[in-house]
Amino acid sequence: MTEQYLMDPDRQPTLAGVERAAKKIAAILPLTPLLPLEIDGTTIWCKAECLQPIGAFKIRGGWHRLTDLSEDQRPRGVVAFSSGNHAQGVAWAARRLGIPATIIMPEDAPRAKLDNTRALGADVVTYDRMNGSREQLAADLAAKTGAVVVPSFDDPWIVEGQGSCGLEMREQMLALTGSEPDQIVACCGGGGLASGSALANPDADIVVVEPEGWDDMKKSLEAGTIVPVGDNPPATECDALQTLRVSPITFDILQGRHALGLSVSQDEVHHAMRVAFSKLRLVVEPGGAVALAAILAGKISLTDHTAITLSGGNVDNQLFARIIAGD
Amino acid sequence: MTEQYLMDPDRQPTLAGVERAAKKIAAILPLTPLLPLEIDGTTIWCKAECLQPIGAFKIRGGWHRLTDLSEDQRPRGVVAFSSGNHAQGVAWAARRLGIPATIIMPEDAPRAKLDNTRALGADVVTYDRMNGSREQLAADLAAKTGAVVVPSFDDPWIVEGQGSCGLEMREQMLALTGSEPDQIVACCGGGGLASGSALANPDADIVVVEPEGWDDMKKSLEAGTIVPVGDNPPATECDALQTLRVSPITFDILQGRHALGLSVSQDEVHHAMRVAFSKLRLVVEPGGAVALAAILAGKISLTDHTAITLSGGNVDNQLFARIIAGD
Repeated sequence: MTEQYLMDPDRQPTLAGVERAAKKIAAILPLTPLLPLEIDGTTIWCKAECLQPIGAFKIRGGWHRLTDLSEDQRPRGVVAFSSGNHAQGVAWAARRLGIPATIIMPEDAPRAKLDNTRALGADVVTYDRMNGSREQLAADLAAKTGAVVVPSFDDPWIVEGQGSCGLEMREQMLALTGSEPDQIVACCGGGGLASGSALANPDADIVVVEPEGWDDMKKSLEAGTIVPVGDNPPATECDALQTLRVSPITFDILQGRHALGLSVSQDEVHHAMRVAFSKLRLVVEPGGAVALAAILAGKISLTDHTAITLSGGNVDNQLFARIIAGD
Repeated sequence: MTEQYLMDPDRQPTLAGVERAAKKIAAILPLTPLLPLEIDGTTIWCKAECLQPIGAFKIRGGWHRLTDLSEDQRPRGVVAFSSGNHAQGVAWAARRLGIPATIIMPEDAPRAKLDNTRALGADVVTYDRMNGSREQLAADLAAKTGAVVVPSFDDPWIVEGQGSCGLEMREQMLALTGSEPDQIVACCGGGGLASGSALANPDADIVVVEPEGWDDMKKSLEAGTIVPVGDNPPATECDALQTLRVSPITFDILQGRHALGLSVSQDEVHHAMRVAFSKLRLVVEPGGAVALAAILAGKISLTDHTAITLSGGNVDNQLFARIIAGD
C-alpha cells in the first residue's frame, strides 16, 4: 500500500486494510471475548464489544482513522458527528494521540454518551437530530479550521477499523471451535460494522439487523438501491442505529454479499437485553442488542457456527433498570 | 506428580497444580478479559470472572476437581454444598463429564442460582443456612452413595483450580502492560480464589475483601488463627461470601503471604456495582463487587499494577435494577 493510496478518502475498504487495522488495535486494546450462549440446544458466539474501553466497537474505526492522519493533518484536529458511540471512539483516539477533537452530537443523545464524550476531552457541539444537518455543521467546521471530518461509517478507514471486530470473531471462533463463522449477524446503523465484518469473513453469510422503522439497510438491500428512512420514523431507544441513510461504501459491500436485512421490535430488544443480563452478565444497550433480539425472536435460522455482535453497552441507568426489572 | 499424589485429599495445593489446572481450563473455556478501569488517574485491571459460562470463577475449581476423579469414582457421582456459584461450577463440570451431581444449597439462595443449578442437571437439596449442617448432610449423602464430596474451598484441587484465575491475571497483565501484578485484591468467602491466586503470583501483595460482619478471614489474619463468624452475623446481599469459618488450607497460604484483610459496607458494594455497570458494562453480583468496593472506598493504596477480581455476576434482576437505579 502506498502512502498516496492511504491518503485517498475515495478508496474502497479492503481485507488487507482490515488486517492492518486489526494489528493496530490489538497493540493497544485488550481482546474482547467471544462468549458462548446456548439457545434451544444450539450454541451461538457473541462478540462482547460492549466491553471496549468506550463501551462500543466504534473505538476501532476511530483508532484506525486517526492513526493514519498525516503529520500535517494532526494539529488541525478532527470533526465527527455521532449519536454517541462514534463520538467516544473518536474522542478516545484523539486524546491518546494528542489531536484536538470536535464532536457534533444530537441534543437528545443519552446523557451517559454526552458525559463520556466530554470526559474524554472532546469539544461537544449539539444539534437537533431531526432538523439540523450534522453533515453541514461538520463541513462548515472543517472548512473553518482545516480539521479532517471523520464520518461514522461512510469512510474506508472506518469500515476497515470496524471490520477488525469481524476478523477477531473469525480467529476466536476458529480457536474455540475449530471452524470459522458460517453466519454473522450484526447490528446495523450505517453498516460499518456489518460491511467491515463481511470483508473479514469472505465465506460467511451476512445478516444485518435494525430497529423497526429505522430499517433502511433492509429496505435498500431488498430494493437493490439505497432507500432512506421515511419522513416520520418512530421513536426508538436504539439511538446508536438512528441512521437516516446508509452510504454506497457500506451498501455496495453488503449488496455484493447478498446480505439479509431484518428488523426487530422494542419488546424483542428488551427481551434480548434481559437475556444478555442473566445469561452473559453483560450490560448491552438497546442498539447493541438487536442482533441477539432477531435470533431470540426466531427470525434467523441458526447454523452450526453463528457469530453475533453485542455492539455497545452505553445505556442510562434508569432505562436499563426499568428494562431489566420488567421480566 | 504421581497418581497417588493426585489422589491424596490431604495434599497441599501447589503452583504446579495451579499451572496444571490452568491448562485444563484454557482447553475448554474462553479466556475472561482483564479490563482496564481508570480510577482518579490510576488504571487498575479487572478480571471479569462474571463472564464465565456459569457467571463465576467457581467453574475453575469444579472442572479441575472433577476431571481428576478416577474411573472408579466417576460413576458414584459427586456431592457439593454451596450458596450457588460453586453449585453451578460443579454442576457444569459434572454435566460435561457425565457424572451424577447432588448439590446442597441454602433454601434462601438467590432464585437465579437455584434455577441455574437445576437447569445444569444437578439434583438440588435445600437446607436452612443458619441451622442445618451442610457438611453433615454432604457426609451422610456421600456415605450412602459412595459419592465424592467436593468442598467449595477446603480442598487442594479447588484452591488450585481457582488459582488459575490468578495465573491468567498474571499472564494477561504482563502482555498488556509489560509487568506482572504487584498487588492482587480478591473477593473472599472461604478464600479459595485469594489463596490460589496468591500461589499463582508469588511476588504480589495480597488483599482479601469481605462484607462487614462476615469478615472472618480478616479477623483470622489479624489474630493469627482461624476465627469463625460470630453467632448473629448481619443479613448481607453478598450471599456468595457467607462463609461461617475459613479452612486451614486457605488461611495458611494467606497468613504465610501476610495478606491484608478488609471489609466493605453494603453502600460501598452498591457503588461498586454501579461503577461496574457504567464504566465496564458488566453485571457484577454483590459478593463479586467487594474488591472493587474496597478500592473505590479508598481503603487500599493503589500500586502501578493492581489487579482485582470481579468474581461473579449471578444476581436477581429486581435487586440489580434497584441498585443500579439508586444512583
